[in-house]
Amino acid sequence: MPERLALTDQQFESATERLMQWLAIASVSTDPAYAASVQQGAQWAASHLRDSGLEVEISPTPGHPVVLARTLDHQVENPQAPRLLFYGHYDVQPPDPLDKWTSEPFKPEIREGADGPAIFARGACDDKGQVAGFLEAVRLYHQAGQLWPGPFTIMLEGEEECGSEHLADWMQTHREALAADVALICDTSMWAPGWPAITYGLRGLVYFDLKLHGPSRDLHSGVYGGSLANPATLLVRVLGRLFDDQQRITIPGIYDDVLPVERSEQEAWGKLNFDDEAFLKNVGAQPFGEAGYSTLERRWARPSCDVNGLYGGYMGEGAKTVIPSFAGAKVSFRIPPAMDPGQVARQFRQWLESQEVGGCRWELTHHGEAWPVKVPTDSKWVQAVSRAVQTSSGQAPALVREGATIPVVAELKTLLGLDTILLGFGLDSDRIHSPNEHFSLERFRCAITTLAEVLKEVAAVQHS
Amino acid sequence: MPERLALTDQQFESATERLMQWLAIASVSTDPAYAASVQQGAQWAASHLRDSGLEVEISPTPGHPVVLARTLDHQVENPQAPRLLFYGHYDVQPPDPLDKWTSEPFKPEIREGADGPAIFARGACDDKGQVAGFLEAVRLYHQAGQLWPGPFTIMLEGEEECGSEHLADWMQTHREALAADVALICDTSMWAPGWPAITYGLRGLVYFDLKLHGPSRDLHSGVYGGSLANPATLLVRVLGRLFDDQQRITIPGIYDDVLPVERSEQEAWGKLNFDDEAFLKNVGAQPFGEAGYSTLERRWARPSCDVNGLYGGYMGEGAKTVIPSFAGAKVSFRIPPAMDPGQVARQFRQWLESQEVGGCRWELTHHGEAWPVKVPTDSKWVQAVSRAVQTSSGQAPALVREGATIPVVAELKTLLGLDTILLGFGLDSDRIHSPNEHFSLERFRCAITTLAEVLKEVAAVQHS
Repeated sequence: MPERLALTDQQFESATERLMQWLAIASVSTDPAYAASVQQGAQWAASHLRDSGLEVEISPTPGHPVVLARTLDHQVENPQAPRLLFYGHYDVQPPDPLDKWTSEPFKPEIREGADGPAIFARGACDDKGQVAGFLEAVRLYHQAGQLWPGPFTIMLEGEEECGSEHLADWMQTHREALAADVALICDTSMWAPGWPAITYGLRGLVYFDLKLHGPSRDLHSGVYGGSLANPATLLVRVLGRLFDDQQRITIPGIYDDVLPVERSEQEAWGKLNFDDEAFLKNVGAQPFGEAGYSTLERRWARPSCDVNGLYGGYMGEGAKTVIPSFAGAKVSFRIPPAMDPGQVARQFRQWLESQEVGGCRWELTHHGEAWPVKVPTDSKWVQAVSRAVQTSSGQAPALVREGATIPVVAELKTLLGLDTILLGFGLDSDRIHSPNEHFSLERFRCAITTLAEVLKEVAAVQHS
Repeated sequence: MPERLALTDQQFESATERLMQWLAIASVSTDPAYAASVQQGAQWAASHLRDSGLEVEISPTPGHPVVLARTLDHQVENPQAPRLLFYGHYDVQPPDPLDKWTSEPFKPEIREGADGPAIFARGACDDKGQVAGFLEAVRLYHQAGQLWPGPFTIMLEGEEECGSEHLADWMQTHREALAADVALICDTSMWAPGWPAITYGLRGLVYFDLKLHGPSRDLHSGVYGGSLANPATLLVRVLGRLFDDQQRITIPGIYDDVLPVERSEQEAWGKLNFDDEAFLKNVGAQPFGEAGYSTLERRWARPSCDVNGLYGGYMGEGAKTVIPSFAGAKVSFRIPPAMDPGQVARQFRQWLESQEVGGCRWELTHHGEAWPVKVPTDSKWVQAVSRAVQTSSGQAPALVREGATIPVVAELKTLLGLDTILLGFGLDSDRIHSPNEHFSLERFRCAITTLAEVLKEVAAVQHS
């Protein structure tokens, strides 16, 4: 194994300048007005990767293109080593509200952030800053005149912030080019400043829009009240039965496939020193959830069910005495490993249909679903990346799960058969998706040096 | 007692022409653009009453004026007879949507309606047509050169269709001028064509806007789901508990003051031949309500509770995975005699405050309340009016209740101590508040002759 690569101050300064160039490109994917900038964002990344000697393609989709880069066999020390597939995205969230930014979102500026000097710009962390960590790690080898330790593929998406509408199809048709042994994504957070984290579990998602239809038109609640089923009243009665007094979901069989939290996992989480009270107090709330579980367990390892929206009848100011002809709700489930989203959707439908609704009629719209994800923490890939973090940061990474859903991770598994390692350099204080997004120079440096080590450690893994 | 007054065809033709003149005045009270027409509508009524020899005043309020007319002692046969207070309104609903009218709403036209030739115009039934029945009955005596049998007062409001904002205050300051023995309102319906009805009971109203506040901002349902109280989820859980499986309201003590339906009342309602199935099928519903009660009992004599609106979180198309910072509902109660709206409001508040909401906070806005009303059917006033109907229509009136609320009836009782007789000549097919409102000539004629009899019969009642 080669010596650890140096990252000189001069090299880091150049890397920072490059990132700031990329951040100056307003690659906002949701708004057609920015289409040319999105294209430019892809070209910039392609050019960066070509400068490092990689074979690069800007691959079209019906939406924004994917940047695809691959090492050639003669460029790597051991072409037979495991191939790493790096996924990131070059598109960014819209910058609104503009008047809340201290410096302009697409004129990157270095000033003091939440954890030291930082680059302020839209995308500084999410995800250009983190992706740049990998691009610069790749470049380090090229600049040092070294071969890369093992083969890798880079796939940079341009539609992550607008729902990745075309990614699954594109991956399907590029399965051969994407063939690899393990995937790596840098789009999550550190557990604490200076303490990188590997996220080895994600919850999946099942989302429904429910409408309950009642009388054929809105009715006068004085003339009809009490004599027929009011769909707004019945909707809340049915949804009100979703939980028992222990805050357990009452749908029969819903917990059947939930993987219990292992003893070793519980112990590991205990060592993370997570502060329940502070976490919830920060958003004006208090712990409230399924009896017998901690806040981390509730967020990471237990299903949750939320009413995300309610609508119907009179929604304006003041009073109107109407029995509405329909009422609706958005209801979603976050499902931990190893729940099956299709099964949850079926169970929920069955449960709904079994409720007494006084002659009203359900209209269900299923807004897609995503599988949960769990990578074994003792897998050779997690161990390899952990070693890289240990080398680079002087400590083992925090091994954490996440309550949210990153659909591409399940798709990498389903479509390509790949486990994904989520290695994050963000922090909650980075204000991603908000004004004054930033990414500290310290963490950018940490990302580059850590990811240079990751390339080495993954290449050193023995095929099983 | 004088002979029954004749209503000649020529007199009825003139009366119809006068009503059509009044209907041509667009006295829409809700829209400031029509303010001059509202004033004109009041003047027209005042002029009609002056032509009949009455002392008339157009009395200002902070909104639209009240037309007030009184008999003088020398104009009535028996000045000591009971004084009748007639309440009606000269304002009308807006005519929208205009393109659904066959003839223009303020160009009255006679053509075939649901029950024979009818006047089509906004206000034809509600309430100008019914009020004109009384004005023309009054005029009949004057035209015949007869004294009126007893004294009466007429109060015509100009703000009924926009919430009667200033009426209670105005009544308070005009208590002396309004002093009477019984009140009469013609703004309800017949039970069937040709069968006038006396409405002797009304439900009252209690209306709340409830907001449940949770986290300090909208949260990501993946990151937080399951660990804190979601106010949308908690709102539906609480409101879902408002009813038990028998569709009884679960608020402790809520039924304590409900007057049971008397056996004689039950028998009388049985004779009305009310068709539950048809009534509800007509609006695409089926019977559903408190166990052990008929549809009429549920509508007229039992409390009902309805969710009139739901709002909060994501209400648009598609999916957004948010835990909302608040969610809200409009909830109202219709309360039969002898429930106290203040008591119901207190019981509901207490019940809400006693529910587990996981640290969320209620914000309650009370949108007013109205008392229920019940006049004894064996009262001398009901009997007098019944005799008038018998004389005029050849059959006794249907004695009915109504599930809706007419707030002025409770105010007449509270402020002036008066029982009100609701004698209606409308029909459900009159399309009040809708395009193509109409009032059949047959029923207009019935109203005039019946109300001429009412003046006689009320004057003949002995003071107790």
